[in-house]
Amino acid sequence: MDLTAYERRLDRPTRVKLPEFQTNGRLKHVIFADQFDRPMLENFNNLSNIVRELARDRETQLFLHNLLPQKRAMLYFSQASTRTFLSFTAACQLLGMSIAEIRDPSVSSEYKGESPFDSMRMFSSYSDLVVMRTPSAGFAEACAYLMNDLDKFNERTVPIVNGGSGADEHPTQALLDVHTIQRSFEFKSERDSSRWAQFDEYRKMYPDLTRGPDSKVYGFCGDIRRGRTVHSLASLLANFSDVTMYFVSPPDLGLPVALRESLLGKGVKVFEHDTLNDIVQNVDLLYMTRIQWEHDKDTAKGSGPAPVNADFILTPELADRMKSYARIMHPFPRNAEIPPEVDHNPRAMYFPQARNGMWVRAALLAHLFDVDGLIVSHHRDVFSEYHNYNTASS
Amino acid sequence: MDLTAYERRLDRPTRVKLPEFQTNGRLKHVIFADQFDRPMLENFNNLSNIVRELARDRETQLFLHNLLPQKRAMLYFSQASTRTFLSFTAACQLLGMSIAEIRDPSVSSEYKGESPFDSMRMFSSYSDLVVMRTPSAGFAEACAYLMNDLDKFNERTVPIVNGGSGADEHPTQALLDVHTIQRSFEFKSERDSSRWAQFDEYRKMYPDLTRGPDSKVYGFCGDIRRGRTVHSLASLLANFSDVTMYFVSPPDLGLPVALRESLLGKGVKVFEHDTLNDIVQNVDLLYMTRIQWEHDKDTAKGSGPAPVNADFILTPELADRMKSYARIMHPFPRNAEIPPEVDHNPRAMYFPQARNGMWVRAALLAHLFDVDGLIVSHHRDVFSEYHNYNTASS
Amino acid sequence: MDLTAYERRLDRPTRVKLPEFQTNGRLKHVIFADQFDRPMLENFNNLSNIVRELARDRETQLFLHNLLPQKRAMLYFSQASTRTFLSFTAACQLLGMSIAEIRDPSVSSEYKGESPFDSMRMFSSYSDLVVMRTPSAGFAEACAYLMNDLDKFNERTVPIVNGGSGADEHPTQALLDVHTIQRSFEFKSERDSSRWAQFDEYRKMYPDLTRGPDSKVYGFCGDIRRGRTVHSLASLLANFSDVTMYFVSPPDLGLPVALRESLLGKGVKVFEHDTLNDIVQNVDLLYMTRIQWEHDKDTAKGSGPAPVNADFILTPELADRMKSYARIMHPFPRNAEIPPEVDHNPRAMYFPQARNGMWVRAALLAHLFDVDGLIVSHHRDVFSEYHNYNTASS
Repeated sequence: MDLTAYERRLDRPTRVKLPEFQTNGRLKHVIFADQFDRPMLENFNNLSNIVRELARDRETQLFLHNLLPQKRAMLYFSQASTRTFLSFTAACQLLGMSIAEIRDPSVSSEYKGESPFDSMRMFSSYSDLVVMRTPSAGFAEACAYLMNDLDKFNERTVPIVNGGSGADEHPTQALLDVHTIQRSFEFKSERDSSRWAQFDEYRKMYPDLTRGPDSKVYGFCGDIRRGRTVHSLASLLANFSDVTMYFVSPPDLGLPVALRESLLGKGVKVFEHDTLNDIVQNVDLLYMTRIQWEHDKDTAKGSGPAPVNADFILTPELADRMKSYARIMHPFPRNAEIPPEVDHNPRAMYFPQARNGMWVRAALLAHLFDVDGLIVSHHRDVFSEYHNYNTASS
Repeated sequence: MDLTAYERRLDRPTRVKLPEFQTNGRLKHVIFADQFDRPMLENFNNLSNIVRELARDRETQLFLHNLLPQKRAMLYFSQASTRTFLSFTAACQLLGMSIAEIRDPSVSSEYKGESPFDSMRMFSSYSDLVVMRTPSAGFAEACAYLMNDLDKFNERTVPIVNGGSGADEHPTQALLDVHTIQRSFEFKSERDSSRWAQFDEYRKMYPDLTRGPDSKVYGFCGDIRRGRTVHSLASLLANFSDVTMYFVSPPDLGLPVALRESLLGKGVKVFEHDTLNDIVQNVDLLYMTRIQWEHDKDTAKGSGPAPVNADFILTPELADRMKSYARIMHPFPRNAEIPPEVDHNPRAMYFPQARNGMWVRAALLAHLFDVDGLIVSHHRDVFSEYHNYNTASS
Repeated sequence: MDLTAYERRLDRPTRVKLPEFQTNGRLKHVIFADQFDRPMLENFNNLSNIVRELARDRETQLFLHNLLPQKRAMLYFSQASTRTFLSFTAACQLLGMSIAEIRDPSVSSEYKGESPFDSMRMFSSYSDLVVMRTPSAGFAEACAYLMNDLDKFNERTVPIVNGGSGADEHPTQALLDVHTIQRSFEFKSERDSSRWAQFDEYRKMYPDLTRGPDSKVYGFCGDIRRGRTVHSLASLLANFSDVTMYFVSPPDLGLPVALRESLLGKGVKVFEHDTLNDIVQNVDLLYMTRIQWEHDKDTAKGSGPAPVNADFILTPELADRMKSYARIMHPFPRNAEIPPEVDHNPRAMYFPQARNGMWVRAALLAHLFDVDGLIVSHHRDVFSEYHNYNTASS
């Protein structure tokens, strides 16, 4: 893909670029995980929880469904990613939005020699927002610049959301990962009548336990070198204080030097290991990933995953050795690194984590279309009686 | 596809399995045609007719459209079936549901080595119901077990609807076939002002004619051996009393022994013939099917249908020799076994039959989401005046 | 594709066919550009403008969105055309319609040997309107005859909209092109508080300038021979009076004799040139097209566009030599014939032109479903205060 026209802007350091993707402290485009600072992460955590609560009953579901019936989203996925595609679809539908989709690159006009930027303007012509997933790093970012340029000429422009750009960035995955951690470390049981029971229970055994992502030990295991989600999540968690990270990987798939330096620079305590066995009992959260064998040069295309080394497999026995409140996450798809027997372990959070993608993306869309305030105040109105009662009794 | 984990459950006799797909007499998953007993068939016939009537005017269409706006269906079609796909789509849209679809198997995460059951949990994560069509027998059934297991662990679960599983089962096709027969044998003319005229007319010529699927002669013609729809329909019709069945096929595509035994065991009178010519004048309903040449080993892939033997073609002349009230059905797609000249014969029911798939599937979805009661009572309210008038005058 | 059954009807002259696609002066099917006469073009121009205005604010957007929630459109695109597909999708969604789509021909039942007319009846079974785009000339037209025949037998029938049939016809493209011209030559600035300022400004420099498509000079450049959109647009513009047309093309891609004769017969002044340089300063509207290199026999499939000869490229310098009020259009996709530097030239109308496809198609759907009257009267009600004020002050 020819990005020459945007090369100079693409080559700048991220921190210089960030202001161009926001207006008055609100997101205009979603391109990098680094756009989410700590207050924004807390805001989206809160908003995602509210959307989830409103989606529970028909009455409040209909409130959400009636928020954006007049808005049309374009989902442009020239690279397959069923999970991301389906959760964006569900997020749009939750808010009542219409969807148009391109999932097969061969269907596009590109075969007639059209520039990808002409295609992008076409997508923005017929929709109010474009979510794009492409194999090429930088394309989503370049499209955001295209939209900003159009804005300067008073021409039609829409928000661009990066749904994964090659090995580069996948900001909404990072957002859902952080949300899952924030939510897990609230230590609330969905089914408890009392909100505090679970945390108090854990504290009996772990008296130093605190709520929230601060002061936690995070373990990352698998393909650390190429794991885009690992890089983004580790960077975002460095926004929290008193954070320790363990990285467990085969020798050739270890922590990139630049990321290591960046984490240390933010005060994170960093350790590297070569077997899960060393760390499972120490971590508060274990983020498992699969070995991305399809990028291996000596793996024939379509040959399927190579057998995973036992050092990077979370067996049921290892999972049972983890702290009782600890949580297991995985960005999916998984291969053999988590056997299905672990699925019913109460620490397994990877299926709820996947579902969180829907709530977080709905929250993000609501923010981009400026109806987040409406959602928060409707939630307050509906639940105020309950909250008042709850506050009084606690 | 590896179904080992469910093998023991898949291998049980159908009657042992059925209770696992219902709760309190209501369907939980739709996997087998055998789940529909006679009362259920009558219930769905009634509900389908009501949905159709409500879909006639804008006001009552909007009532249907506002029933399930907050529900999202996942249509997972890893095997192409345009007709089934489109009628499920229309059924969802009639009830106002949102839809996400996977129609191209290569788009899925499976190429990254994901287990099909992880994919299925993903689909269920973002939706409220999964309709699935796959080439592999048993997969939909195994998914229903997966959901039941999740239910036991208090985890998220959704209804599974089998939209066709290989050569195995296609329960909603069976349901629409029976509905078409029930409806045809009500002998009501859509356009009659008097509801009884048509039946009375027929009785003048055929004094023994009765209403409903009981005491009828059914003819099945074509690929009897491999015709999944023939097997399911014949089994379900055996629920009615005083039933006769003729099977007409080439010698190597005849009635499987097991099906023959089962029909005889239920009191059906069974006859086999080798030419349509023998039976057309005797049947009340003729169910035509195409020869499934694409399964023939000596037919080159993509070579197209072989010429159909004249004994299994319903020519316009043969169609005209049928009883005046008799009906012709076909599950589609058709090849040469019914020439287009027959399409305007008043006995031809195959196009309305296809459209019935939409009403029946909408009725089924309404049942699964527990809004069938609402539909029936709304229909009663809207049409009560008309019905009262009608009852008084008849 | 076997169209034998419709051959006799397909072979008639267009003017004989037209009455079969309308009822009482309203369109029943949309097959040919020639169905749009001058009053109809003016009517659709007006309706498209109204739809656009109503789509501006949430309140009036919701009015549109609530017009056709009970209607289902089938988009059958067996030939890829992302732009046409997306703008029909957006048009349906604007009016609240549901959509089912077939975009991949291999997904269809045709591989089982089904007749394309059976497929079409299936599509019409589950939907209220079929938009179709196919590589075969005549198929959409034949489908309209199929529907008309069904109507005669009192069977289910739906409107057919031709979304492009091979090299043959693409009536909705012609409609959006004419609308773009009508709208451009109203000389209204979107952002002017006074409606007349812009036109008066232009008249100071061009005292003979009039409003509307009459008395204008049109330039067409590029692949005149194979440019379906050029043929349709030129034919429709011949409905206006005092029209001059310049055609600029390589020698082997010039104006077909039949079209030349037809235009001359309608009183159009026709000129042919071999370089843009000759005409840019004289035209009121320049319609650029790409060379359809993919149809060249000596271009290897997938080889990409050949370099475009400089005589048929609208360089920024040439664009600047055009009259200040002149407009540049292009049906897209474009190759090198308009360099991106021209995009911000105020004469460039090709991106708004593409977006006009959405408004025009929404207007067309509204007409076919007979809610155009509702739209016009709602618009009158909403804007009457503003209009009264405006009339009084002007």
